[in-house]
Amino acid sequence: MKRKIEVGILGATGLVGQHFVNLLRDHPWFELKWLAASERSAQRKYGEAASWRLADPMPDNAAKMMVEECAPSHGPQIVFSALDSKVAGEIEAQFAAAGHLVVSNAGNYRMEPDVPLLVPEINPDHLNLAKQQKTNRRWKGSIVTNPNCSTVVLTMALAPLDSDFGLRKVLVTTMQAISGAGYPGLPSMDALGNIIPFIGGPAKDAQGNPNPLISSEEDKIEQETRKILGQLKNKAVVPAKFLISAQANRVPVLDGHTESISVELEAKPSLKDLVRCWNGFRGIPQKRKLPSAPPQPVIFLVGQDRPQPRLDVMKEGGMAVFVGRARPCAVLQFRFIAMGHNVIRGAAGAALLNAELMKSEGWLP
Amino acid sequence: MKRKIEVGILGATGLVGQHFVNLLRDHPWFELKWLAASERSAQRKYGEAASWRLADPMPDNAAKMMVEECAPSHGPQIVFSALDSKVAGEIEAQFAAAGHLVVSNAGNYRMEPDVPLLVPEINPDHLNLAKQQKTNRRWKGSIVTNPNCSTVVLTMALAPLDSDFGLRKVLVTTMQAISGAGYPGLPSMDALGNIIPFIGGPAKDAQGNPNPLISSEEDKIEQETRKILGQLKNKAVVPAKFLISAQANRVPVLDGHTESISVELEAKPSLKDLVRCWNGFRGIPQKRKLPSAPPQPVIFLVGQDRPQPRLDVMKEGGMAVFVGRARPCAVLQFRFIAMGHNVIRGAAGAALLNAELMKSEGWLP
Amino acid sequence: MKRKIEVGILGATGLVGQHFVNLLRDHPWFELKWLAASERSAQRKYGEAASWRLADPMPDNAAKMMVEECAPSHGPQIVFSALDSKVAGEIEAQFAAAGHLVVSNAGNYRMEPDVPLLVPEINPDHLNLAKQQKTNRRWKGSIVTNPNCSTVVLTMALAPLDSDFGLRKVLVTTMQAISGAGYPGLPSMDALGNIIPFIGGPAKDAQGNPNPLISSEEDKIEQETRKILGQLKNKAVVPAKFLISAQANRVPVLDGHTESISVELEAKPSLKDLVRCWNGFRGIPQKRKLPSAPPQPVIFLVGQDRPQPRLDVMKEGGMAVFVGRARPCAVLQFRFIAMGHNVIRGAAGAALLNAELMKSEGWLP
Amino acid sequence: MKRKIEVGILGATGLVGQHFVNLLRDHPWFELKWLAASERSAQRKYGEAASWRLADPMPDNAAKMMVEECAPSHGPQIVFSALDSKVAGEIEAQFAAAGHLVVSNAGNYRMEPDVPLLVPEINPDHLNLAKQQKTNRRWKGSIVTNPNCSTVVLTMALAPLDSDFGLRKVLVTTMQAISGAGYPGLPSMDALGNIIPFIGGPAKDAQGNPNPLISSEEDKIEQETRKILGQLKNKAVVPAKFLISAQANRVPVLDGHTESISVELEAKPSLKDLVRCWNGFRGIPQKRKLPSAPPQPVIFLVGQDRPQPRLDVMKEGGMAVFVGRARPCAVLQFRFIAMGHNVIRGAAGAALLNAELMKSEGWLP
Repeated sequence: MKRKIEVGILGATGLVGQHFVNLLRDHPWFELKWLAASERSAQRKYGEAASWRLADPMPDNAAKMMVEECAPSHGPQIVFSALDSKVAGEIEAQFAAAGHLVVSNAGNYRMEPDVPLLVPEINPDHLNLAKQQKTNRRWKGSIVTNPNCSTVVLTMALAPLDSDFGLRKVLVTTMQAISGAGYPGLPSMDALGNIIPFIGGPAKDAQGNPNPLISSEEDKIEQETRKILGQLKNKAVVPAKFLISAQANRVPVLDGHTESISVELEAKPSLKDLVRCWNGFRGIPQKRKLPSAPPQPVIFLVGQDRPQPRLDVMKEGGMAVFVGRARPCAVLQFRFIAMGHNVIRGAAGAALLNAELMKSEGWLP
Repeated sequence: MKRKIEVGILGATGLVGQHFVNLLRDHPWFELKWLAASERSAQRKYGEAASWRLADPMPDNAAKMMVEECAPSHGPQIVFSALDSKVAGEIEAQFAAAGHLVVSNAGNYRMEPDVPLLVPEINPDHLNLAKQQKTNRRWKGSIVTNPNCSTVVLTMALAPLDSDFGLRKVLVTTMQAISGAGYPGLPSMDALGNIIPFIGGPAKDAQGNPNPLISSEEDKIEQETRKILGQLKNKAVVPAKFLISAQANRVPVLDGHTESISVELEAKPSLKDLVRCWNGFRGIPQKRKLPSAPPQPVIFLVGQDRPQPRLDVMKEGGMAVFVGRARPCAVLQFRFIAMGHNVIRGAAGAALLNAELMKSEGWLP
Repeated sequence: MKRKIEVGILGATGLVGQHFVNLLRDHPWFELKWLAASERSAQRKYGEAASWRLADPMPDNAAKMMVEECAPSHGPQIVFSALDSKVAGEIEAQFAAAGHLVVSNAGNYRMEPDVPLLVPEINPDHLNLAKQQKTNRRWKGSIVTNPNCSTVVLTMALAPLDSDFGLRKVLVTTMQAISGAGYPGLPSMDALGNIIPFIGGPAKDAQGNPNPLISSEEDKIEQETRKILGQLKNKAVVPAKFLISAQANRVPVLDGHTESISVELEAKPSLKDLVRCWNGFRGIPQKRKLPSAPPQPVIFLVGQDRPQPRLDVMKEGGMAVFVGRARPCAVLQFRFIAMGHNVIRGAAGAALLNAELMKSEGWLP
Repeated sequence: MKRKIEVGILGATGLVGQHFVNLLRDHPWFELKWLAASERSAQRKYGEAASWRLADPMPDNAAKMMVEECAPSHGPQIVFSALDSKVAGEIEAQFAAAGHLVVSNAGNYRMEPDVPLLVPEINPDHLNLAKQQKTNRRWKGSIVTNPNCSTVVLTMALAPLDSDFGLRKVLVTTMQAISGAGYPGLPSMDALGNIIPFIGGPAKDAQGNPNPLISSEEDKIEQETRKILGQLKNKAVVPAKFLISAQANRVPVLDGHTESISVELEAKPSLKDLVRCWNGFRGIPQKRKLPSAPPQPVIFLVGQDRPQPRLDVMKEGGMAVFVGRARPCAVLQFRFIAMGHNVIRGAAGAALLNAELMKSEGWLP
């Protein structure tokens, strides 16, 4: 068998970092060789430095690895980034400049014109944006990103409809799991038996200045969705033109973002057409059978009370998006529910699939 | 002081019945004199028959009362009904026929053309519908109803906007508390750490026949809202004409329904106009200072992450509706969040306010 | 490969029944061939009759099987029973009388002198009790049972200590998951954000008569533990002589019973001796490598805040018991925490391991 | 009416500080005049500085007060301390030295020989210890403390038994609410649907040194209980001699610590004697009708599944302790459950009652 490609993780001790470690456990193409985190964790064994929050046990080999600092002189060429957005901007740039391929889950570069914001089933061609980084930024390497966790679930449910019937309007209300806020994340007193109708950083930072880095989840959903479903023309993405409005809520669920979605389409499909469209949707990851790709990426559930995070989120290894309750909407055209695993399909698994796509496209050694 | 009006409760042992008992504890106008429930509870003291689920202690006088069967030969003239819809249809009709005034929280008669579906701040004039029951149904008494719990929260937030700016379209996604399903209600395995994207009875009953009595929560929201905000013309309610679409979800919250709402209006108010409209809204209950009326029925909260059920639901005794996060909506015109106590403002308190309205209108002895 | 042994499930639609179906998915020795449940579910496909509550998807072959009534004329020779104790007494006797081997999770026969109450790692020799059933009860078949879910966790933690150091006193407080009450089980209003300091049926039945069938969880723990750790002498089990006192509490946890245990021992081991004793414990299931046996049945976790149900319950497939926080007890001798999966190790997996033990002992064809 | 005594709060923005503000809302004796907190909050209005977590609304007068730094040159003579133990040691000493009376909820001085650790119903005479502080420490003022939240609940349930029947042994397992960890406190991912079988700081601090300040909850329970129930002899407290062993667990409950307790007594009372003893227990706060004193401080609940935090914690304004499920214990002598509000009776309300006791003893101006 061919030698595996060595990969590393930036921000390996956090919750998304832990999911990277978990998903890379027995990966057929990638071998986890390097773990990096903040100064506080560096020079400690991963088994001690990480406060492991997953029900799957920590892989033995990772537990024994020494955590290093996030310095680009170290680390393999391919690094997954689970860094916090407060530090990701600078560190990821350093790694890209030094020649690394940074497959990032952080939000900092997602909306940059020369950075691909990828959902491999939807817009694999956007990957080509990354080639401009060498010129634009004089980086030897490059950065590719995956969307915000709630955007992944939304775009997976929307892309088949947009492709077959043309999206005009999208109105979404999310009910997002606490793991989306990382660890320690949300205080338990806010989460237990409560709904918080806002997700995002404070409008102002600690010194009272406007905080441009941390936009609200709703802004992210609205902007990222249009970029992902936009068209690549003349080496730039022209954002999709449909109207989109989002309300983000935090709910006391461990894993799994549920989204209540209404759409207006250009065509007039029947409900059966919609279901057929979702169930029949396949992308390059499916065609090429990428290791982390679910055989059917969007799955319509027929039960009148599905999808539910507790019952459905871990199906297909957490990599599929589940849709249900499709019906006419008296205001727009159709309503439905979409649900997916926010840390697997929505973060670490998303980045991993991006890397697998790049490997299959010949970007990796 | 004048003698209080004697009242009774049908379905007194259930969760809504318990809230009736609790709210009537020291009521200035009404005196609780009679408790009725199913055969299983009858002939037992209320303190033993009711599995009390409220944090407020059971009132002593109620604890000692003997529960009777729901027979119209007994009971005071005014009865509040917290009956399950499976039995409310027949029993409430018996009581109305026998001359009782039934102030009901049950869903059975809400959409009947000659039955008022009241929110006293919004459509007190609809009360006059009840006069037709004597002719139409040959009842000596009558039935008046309050809406479904999620409809109360929605209509309280919408009515001021409709009145000032004219509603054209309403799109709502609810996140409803478990107490809305009564007791025992939702199994804990379904509720804990989960979202159920459907509320309502099974489409078919136990024998496999279509179940017309138990419509989905979404149908109730859509139909009841238009009746409440409709106009009384020629002794009939003409439903409001705006388009409305609802998605109902169950969330692991004890008390308090949160609703994510988008609206399109006929006028073009500013956001400040909206906030002024909600905060300035007053109805007959406020003008007449009805005992259970909150001084300000709709309260806009300025915090960027409010309202939250845990922090806000018990303000104003659970009788106000809280609105927050108003902002432009890219698809319709404005988005906002509304939240209110589903068993107080949304059920027992709603019926109590109906009775207070009727008293102030001279309907009660 | 040898032909698998055909097995069936009584009470297949309930929560424990579902776990049986799930655990038998690809069992190397047993093949699920028959599903039986109450009249209400009979003659329907399992996929429709069962309200599947597991995160693992329902096995396809089970989904298509037709559910039958619990009649002994049908069904394979080996049946697992997940019946409710209200009906298990009669139905299991009918099956045993007709020649079936009933491997039961129900509580009805556990304390019968001629019925084995087995934890295969601890008292496999008690299996021989079952031989007396033919004479005593004139049954062609027989019944073997596993303990109550909280008793399994407790006895797994106690047995190594009793064997090596001799138990004198045991004081336990349990914190039991809601899945222990089955489905629908506990109302969500009782579970959410609450502790219920009692588990068990009402002291009196619906007619007000004492209810002998449904004893409290605490009685079960105290009685069953002494039987399991008792000695088989002259064809009868002499219950263990140590003193034992239990307090059972329901907590808002999905799966995993946590138990706070204090013990007094005859010997004076060190804390290190205790840890070595637990980690070194092996039984016949381990020696014979029974398919469902965890390689190490009792696992001591060194973290100062472990075991935790969310992080540890699914390790070892839910079949091991986790112990932690061992330290001196100022009143008795040592204190520690034990935790295990109540529906897997504590119910369906327990019965399955019983059947595997019987197979390895030559009891099955 | 007499002028009220002016009081202040150290650490006013935290969760316990908020409860102080809330309980002082309309206090008949004390008037809240001064709020102090960390540098980060100082010079901001309390309404902005405090992230208010209580369902009761923030009092208007507090909202408008300017938060000051914790400097002893400011502030009224009487200050309640809700400071974090990391800073309480130094700041409280500064205030006491400067002549303030510090009524503290912090753990730092509780076990000091010359500092009263008070539960006013139990050991009001220990107050006299404080007189030694002037000599011992050359403080112009003094510090008095209340116990850890779980200790309050325990000692309230034990004191009547100790007084009437003599305690010999106490074994307790606690199930403690998340509010006991303050705000932000416990991460929601640890709390939701989980049990953590340990409460307390890390054994080592961030630099890896042993951490003497933060002892485990279990140590606190064991030590504080013996001091509170100890005898004042020759100006010193002789700790009670009974054996005591504690296991502390965190459970997903908002407010209310539940404790499973076994005791061995010197006398041989009947169960009825126990119940009579608890229900008849009264202390100085009751005799003098102190404003925050519950008329009956320990209340036995007869329901077989009580007390429960959700149903019982707010009875008596959260100032009583509820006991239930008393029955024989096969290992010690009796078992029972005690439950009380950890932030009211267990923290802010406890300190307030201490101040009321001191007022009634003539310690306040």
